[in-house]
Amino acid sequence: MTRPLIRTMTVIGVGLIGGSFARALKGSGAVERVIGVDRDQENLKTALELGVVDEAAPSLADGVRAADLVFLAVPVRSVAAVVAELAPHLAGGCIVTDGGSVKDELVRQCEALLPAGVAFVGGHPIAGTEHSGAAASFAELFKGRRCILTPTATTDAAALQTVRRLWEAAGSRVESMDPLTHDRVFAAVSHLPHMVAYALVHAVAASAEEEENILAFSAGGFRDFTRIASSDPVMWRDIALMNRGPLLDLLDRYADELAALRQRVESGDGTWLEQFFRTSKRLRDEIT
Amino acid sequence: MTRPLIRTMTVIGVGLIGGSFARALKGSGAVERVIGVDRDQENLKTALELGVVDEAAPSLADGVRAADLVFLAVPVRSVAAVVAELAPHLAGGCIVTDGGSVKDELVRQCEALLPAGVAFVGGHPIAGTEHSGAAASFAELFKGRRCILTPTATTDAAALQTVRRLWEAAGSRVESMDPLTHDRVFAAVSHLPHMVAYALVHAVAASAEEEENILAFSAGGFRDFTRIASSDPVMWRDIALMNRGPLLDLLDRYADELAALRQRVESGDGTWLEQFFRTSKRLRDEIT
Repeated sequence: MTRPLIRTMTVIGVGLIGGSFARALKGSGAVERVIGVDRDQENLKTALELGVVDEAAPSLADGVRAADLVFLAVPVRSVAAVVAELAPHLAGGCIVTDGGSVKDELVRQCEALLPAGVAFVGGHPIAGTEHSGAAASFAELFKGRRCILTPTATTDAAALQTVRRLWEAAGSRVESMDPLTHDRVFAAVSHLPHMVAYALVHAVAASAEEEENILAFSAGGFRDFTRIASSDPVMWRDIALMNRGPLLDLLDRYADELAALRQRVESGDGTWLEQFFRTSKRLRDEIT
Repeated sequence: MTRPLIRTMTVIGVGLIGGSFARALKGSGAVERVIGVDRDQENLKTALELGVVDEAAPSLADGVRAADLVFLAVPVRSVAAVVAELAPHLAGGCIVTDGGSVKDELVRQCEALLPAGVAFVGGHPIAGTEHSGAAASFAELFKGRRCILTPTATTDAAALQTVRRLWEAAGSRVESMDPLTHDRVFAAVSHLPHMVAYALVHAVAASAEEEENILAFSAGGFRDFTRIASSDPVMWRDIALMNRGPLLDLLDRYADELAALRQRVESGDGTWLEQFFRTSKRLRDEIT
């Protein structure tokens, strides 16, 4: 049992991420008491019954008043509204942190909304499962997974250190990155691939309306390849909107690559095509 | 032991597909004797030593002279040249068939090149592994997998029936489709996804040159998603060139979907984006 880093932590949104963070930190002794807040009263009741949280608060104001640290695990586009609502009720010295997958706009919103004496630290744990809700949460979710913290020039150093220790207590390997770099990285390795997959399903589905055999033969590789097009539409709407700038850059770059490829297919340039595919294979095989 | 359907089968290209077909048909008793031909003498020697083939022929002409059936398992763009070379040496009544993954142009080439009295049946077994060569072949490769035969108006009915029985003897579920329909279906469910993945790796790699963190974070979902960009560059060059028409149609349709999506990301149209993602998810989840 470590000496607690935090006496009272309030988790806003006790789903897979918020619930797992609560379980991990209570389990490791890094946090003494967890208060849960959730729009979904059924989910909050489940969290309380399962012992994911020690207390279920009836409102945001009630939930955060006694908090030494607030963990925001709500959809990225809800964060600003939630922070605006809870800000007046925070005690001085409180730390607010989050687990959202888009950071630049979100961090700027939070820093602007929180009063002096309250520190904000942006975070993004690279972890998840296909399930959601408090019942799906488990203490080991973050074990061995990376968590990126996104401090800015104004981030309080002590608060940053505390949040880092909490993620380490949850088993994460913690890295730091400025918020915009974070968003550019995830636009490339995650957000663009999701857009690519969503658009691909649409194109193939449109073709399948003309040729029914397409559906019959989409069960193999196509189904595997488009797995990420089954991701939560609301979450991905929010990510696309919140990470617009970096995502548009990547979408344009990708459209250029695709147009170049299309041109060489049309002109029948086998030398170019082989080289293009060979380079892709090499680059992809280099990823470890 | 079934009564043999074919006395002597010659396999041109004794790799994963050709070797596995030979093993499966000898194993089931559907074929009595297998002659192997291969540009790669080392591979052919291995095939002989492993008993994949009963005889290794020194040349195409020698290999096909005694054949009741010739199975072409060479790259799709080599088929025409191989057929032109072997055509003068075939016995009357011989059946020629193939296992290429593009059919329309290939079938027309073969039908034009083969002499009267020799039947051609186009085929495409939907099976494979990441390995290649005779040593990677195994009799069960086609078991339970689909094989598409692509007869045309001029295909000999008896030859078609024989080829169908051979694939059934290898354990395949055989379906028929006209060659162009086949190519449209596979442009959608396989060829377009490969192009999409190859272009995606290029776009992300170009971004990674500016932002090194991108490489560090590409090990997770991105690596899984782009697995098919590790496919054989020469094979995919040939597929892109041989299935140009249907592939260009799909590439254009896909580029349109992507441009529409980009437009709504730029304009911040959350309602449209959520609907687009929701439709993708529903369509993808419907694939069984």
